[in-house]
Amino acid sequence: MIDVHSFAAGHWTPSDSAARPIACAITGEIIARSGNGALDVGAMHAYAREVGGPALRKLTFHDRARMLKALAIYLGERKQALYDLSFHTGATQADHAFDIDGGIGTMFVYASKGRREMPDARIYLDGEVEQLGREGTFLGRHVAVPLQGVGVHINAFNFPVWGMLEKFAPTFLAGVPSIVKPATATSYVTEACVRMMLESGILPDGALQLIAGGTGDLLKRLDAQDVVSFTGSADTALKLRSEPHLLANAVRFVAEQDSLNASVLGPDAAPGTPEFDLFVTEAHREMTTKAGQKCTAIRRIMAPATHVDALIAALSERLQSTQIGDPRDKATRMGALVSTAQRADVLEKVAALATEAERVSGDPDSFRAPVEGGAFLPPMLFHCADPDAAERLHDTEAFGPVSTIMPYRDADHAIALLNRGKGSLVASVITRDTDLAREMVLGAAAWHGRLYFNNRDSMAEATGHGAPMPHMVHGGPGRAGGGEELGGIRGVMHYMQRTAVQGSPDILTAVGAEWIPGATETTASEHPFTKTFHDLAIGETLHTDPREVTLDDIETFAHFTGDTFYAHMDEEAAKANPFFPGRVAHGYLLLSFAAGLFVQPDPGPVLANTGLGALTFLKPVSPGDTIAVRLTVKKKTPRTDTYGQVRWHVTVTNQDAEKVAEYELHTMNAYS
Amino acid sequence: MIDVHSFAAGHWTPSDSAARPIACAITGEIIARSGNGALDVGAMHAYAREVGGPALRKLTFHDRARMLKALAIYLGERKQALYDLSFHTGATQADHAFDIDGGIGTMFVYASKGRREMPDARIYLDGEVEQLGREGTFLGRHVAVPLQGVGVHINAFNFPVWGMLEKFAPTFLAGVPSIVKPATATSYVTEACVRMMLESGILPDGALQLIAGGTGDLLKRLDAQDVVSFTGSADTALKLRSEPHLLANAVRFVAEQDSLNASVLGPDAAPGTPEFDLFVTEAHREMTTKAGQKCTAIRRIMAPATHVDALIAALSERLQSTQIGDPRDKATRMGALVSTAQRADVLEKVAALATEAERVSGDPDSFRAPVEGGAFLPPMLFHCADPDAAERLHDTEAFGPVSTIMPYRDADHAIALLNRGKGSLVASVITRDTDLAREMVLGAAAWHGRLYFNNRDSMAEATGHGAPMPHMVHGGPGRAGGGEELGGIRGVMHYMQRTAVQGSPDILTAVGAEWIPGATETTASEHPFTKTFHDLAIGETLHTDPREVTLDDIETFAHFTGDTFYAHMDEEAAKANPFFPGRVAHGYLLLSFAAGLFVQPDPGPVLANTGLGALTFLKPVSPGDTIAVRLTVKKKTPRTDTYGQVRWHVTVTNQDAEKVAEYELHTMNAYS
Repeated sequence: MIDVHSFAAGHWTPSDSAARPIACAITGEIIARSGNGALDVGAMHAYAREVGGPALRKLTFHDRARMLKALAIYLGERKQALYDLSFHTGATQADHAFDIDGGIGTMFVYASKGRREMPDARIYLDGEVEQLGREGTFLGRHVAVPLQGVGVHINAFNFPVWGMLEKFAPTFLAGVPSIVKPATATSYVTEACVRMMLESGILPDGALQLIAGGTGDLLKRLDAQDVVSFTGSADTALKLRSEPHLLANAVRFVAEQDSLNASVLGPDAAPGTPEFDLFVTEAHREMTTKAGQKCTAIRRIMAPATHVDALIAALSERLQSTQIGDPRDKATRMGALVSTAQRADVLEKVAALATEAERVSGDPDSFRAPVEGGAFLPPMLFHCADPDAAERLHDTEAFGPVSTIMPYRDADHAIALLNRGKGSLVASVITRDTDLAREMVLGAAAWHGRLYFNNRDSMAEATGHGAPMPHMVHGGPGRAGGGEELGGIRGVMHYMQRTAVQGSPDILTAVGAEWIPGATETTASEHPFTKTFHDLAIGETLHTDPREVTLDDIETFAHFTGDTFYAHMDEEAAKANPFFPGRVAHGYLLLSFAAGLFVQPDPGPVLANTGLGALTFLKPVSPGDTIAVRLTVKKKTPRTDTYGQVRWHVTVTNQDAEKVAEYELHTMNAYS
Repeated sequence: MIDVHSFAAGHWTPSDSAARPIACAITGEIIARSGNGALDVGAMHAYAREVGGPALRKLTFHDRARMLKALAIYLGERKQALYDLSFHTGATQADHAFDIDGGIGTMFVYASKGRREMPDARIYLDGEVEQLGREGTFLGRHVAVPLQGVGVHINAFNFPVWGMLEKFAPTFLAGVPSIVKPATATSYVTEACVRMMLESGILPDGALQLIAGGTGDLLKRLDAQDVVSFTGSADTALKLRSEPHLLANAVRFVAEQDSLNASVLGPDAAPGTPEFDLFVTEAHREMTTKAGQKCTAIRRIMAPATHVDALIAALSERLQSTQIGDPRDKATRMGALVSTAQRADVLEKVAALATEAERVSGDPDSFRAPVEGGAFLPPMLFHCADPDAAERLHDTEAFGPVSTIMPYRDADHAIALLNRGKGSLVASVITRDTDLAREMVLGAAAWHGRLYFNNRDSMAEATGHGAPMPHMVHGGPGRAGGGEELGGIRGVMHYMQRTAVQGSPDILTAVGAEWIPGATETTASEHPFTKTFHDLAIGETLHTDPREVTLDDIETFAHFTGDTFYAHMDEEAAKANPFFPGRVAHGYLLLSFAAGLFVQPDPGPVLANTGLGALTFLKPVSPGDTIAVRLTVKKKTPRTDTYGQVRWHVTVTNQDAEKVAEYELHTMNAYS
């Protein structure tokens, strides 16, 4: 018997008399108990806020990203223990790939994005500088800082590991501690994973706590610095979001609840095409993975009327050959539902669907459970000939291996049926018709958090209708809860406050650790290319000597490179062009001369010029003009153990101090 | 007597027996009536959804941006009529600059951002392409499309024009119709502005409707495609956000409610510095503009203990010399509050503040109203010596010309006091100390929607503590409502659904109208530089002939440009560098040769190369290597009446078809 502990205010706390028993999904035997009626959630909230938050906020985004990566590696080395435990939830080895490997993978993606897309700093810059006055002495920029509260993560039973980690990773990267409350039915798997994470010694104290059981009065303690992130049923979501204390304090609430996700077989995906076979494969996978207990699973299948029969035949055949059994058996393709209560709920919903649709595959009455006492069900396919008249079909989520096929007439009809889900996490369209894809986006995106297109071109690498990727947002409007998670750094922003900062260039440079034109320039006697990454200061500036650009230079460059564009070669033709006063220097000539002016030729800390960004040619340079360059350290970002990226702000001016070009130069600079 | 009409389902509808009288703020006379108990809000909602929405969604972002600009010009030409009417609300000519000119200015900014930052298309691309597989055959990208519902805008009395337009502009740009419900007290000004907007003939039918009076059962008709955007009191916000129908349907709700905004005098801003004088000017302006009826006004003033007396003296003197009177008098610097009810409310709050703070300037009892019957008040300054012990001070918003000065010890203390507002729209800090600014952001940004820094460097152009700029977000956490408006395109996103789209490069190219590597390339017999903007197709590609890069080329280029960096010149030194196998070609040499390979030299539709973006050097090019270029039309954006921008995807490869450089080339191309 597993006793599922809570981890509260630094201590593991066993269950007490309030504990509830948890049965094995395969056998029905009681294998665990979970719940503690006396848990001090007030102390947990205070511990997160007073110990965890301050410790996390001292770290930079890169620090936290590195910790996420270390944690992901640590868990990856121990995942067999999680697999072993997770079989009891009814999940197969293939299901573990979604839950356990998927959760660890999500941490890797956040670790990587944290390093690549966020600064090695404590303040995140959101968007570009806005010039709020004519001269540029007063500017605005958006920043994001960690909330000073806690992420309260209330998770569903179906993904005890992924469900926790997909919320934990962005919260941690933001710099905010988490209090995780898993669903009781699978809480023993979550607990095992939390135990590993804490045992790793990687996390600062207070960064992660676990509630096995009820949340007590935790929600009543929250304020605008806290976030409630919920995944589960619409009923529970509504109860939570209606909590007067949350409403009165404008506490952030993110919900991912019910969804009647659909998949559309494109008119081009006729039987015999690779798309038709792909459709059958995806629909089968979505119906049977996790025994259909996936919030993204396909509940409604839409096919052109002419393909409905063929699709029923092909999908039924695939479903009927699916090996259902003990998930520990290697031959098993579909395991058990999480509990007999869940099975009963599915059968009740199936009865509702049966009033509008005909069952064409899978009979729960004649089905014999492969293991006695287990929560097994056969996959069930329905057919509804008149989906326009149906109601329950579009609002009943049977959270098991259940789906309904329905015909559609044309793209508009398919869009109307999709949108009758009243807000879904995902819809998929299997088609190669790019116009149809565009039409679907215009018509159906407003009701969906994700639209997944697949066909022969993408099927080798496609990640699946049902798999939320950490790079892409997960959530949907309306029935799906109106929430949004993941989506790369977007998911981190839920745990940060976006704040508009206004001030002088010097103020904004200090806040953002990124030099802004107009801010103080410092000049040193040494050339900045002779300074190491660490010695270079933001704002350090080199002003070069001037150089004349002659007509000879332009001629030479044109013939050397082969770029004999008329604006450089033909005075009359150039004059006729609205941009040029006559023959002008090549933009690339200016770039090249600029480099000639600022480069320090000897070996030193600057290892390479790796690129360039946001180059704008602002004013033409005519023969006889003189150019000079200002080169300023804009931003520094560590990249490896030995060097980091320096972004330089470069301005090329002419003899009248007018800007002729501006860009950002990227170099890699050695630390020492 | 003005009869404030509603504009419902295409018709102007007068008030009925449910109307309420509206008094002039200056004289107390009844000047208008507003309200219609029988208004058919169901028909309004249907009209917006069935007529307005579809018409707006047919337009591109650029179309709608152009309409916004035309509307802004139209209103600008008629603003005197709005000024004349708006005096009755108690507002001075200077106040009109915030409300009327500010509202029109907001439309101009959205018109401009719509053209510059959004595509001439119906689908907005949010962020970059995410590669979801190794080979790049399956990708993800976020798009945003207009919601298919309506923006219900419930506005406050204090900004009858700006309040409407700052919500209308982003909603319209998103492609969503608006139903505006102004506060009754100043609804006659809003109605006059709506009348102008409709008379302009610029707006599609159904894009804008007006409710003068109650919203009836409108909220109960909304779903996930609608947005309620509210500005007003916390009590009303809580009532609205608790509406069970909104909660059950996850209807988007954006609120901007109470706020105890503060301003901090930096320790460096001692009496005698320009910052001290600036602080007095800003604090005075915030207390007296709109007679302090601004949600962003400074309610709490924090000063280093040593400067408190000097600040009280200086600010009191300025306040006492403020000319209060009929706003139509040119000499008047502060007008009336909107109503005697509002004045009574302020006096009640002032009494609460007086239990914790001492009044040091402005006595309402001895004050004589400059016009009999008007809702006048003197500006009142309080001093609280022990702000840590105070409670009401940090949660009582006296919505009039009232503020309280309090001492602070150090930055941490100031941050703690700021954050005791429990969520504010804005805090300002007058300082030149950049370290202090950074510390303030780290400590206080989490509780604030905006942090405003000002000092001698920025004061000439600073936009003011209290002025929300359309470029920057407006809103704040917690007490301020947890909402966010404006902030450029961020404000448009509230009226759009963000959707993750996954699929092959061809599918994503069709959806986004932006070519993605891996998507189909089309090649024509003509050089693409000979084609006009309109004739060029997305995906049109030129493959150039190859060209060898010789050691001679490198030597020539080095001596010509002056760029003799050792990696190009010294085999031994180059080999010691971790990036290079030996001497390599200059990056700028590759760029220049690439241009030489793809440029078509004769006059034609390509007018100029205006810039370049996201250049990455991927692999070094050694002497003897051969390069070739692929140039593909990535995106087209109209810019003026005669030409548009073409962004080209450029890939430079070597003899082994390895990428050596990749970038985006920008040209301006004539339409014909």
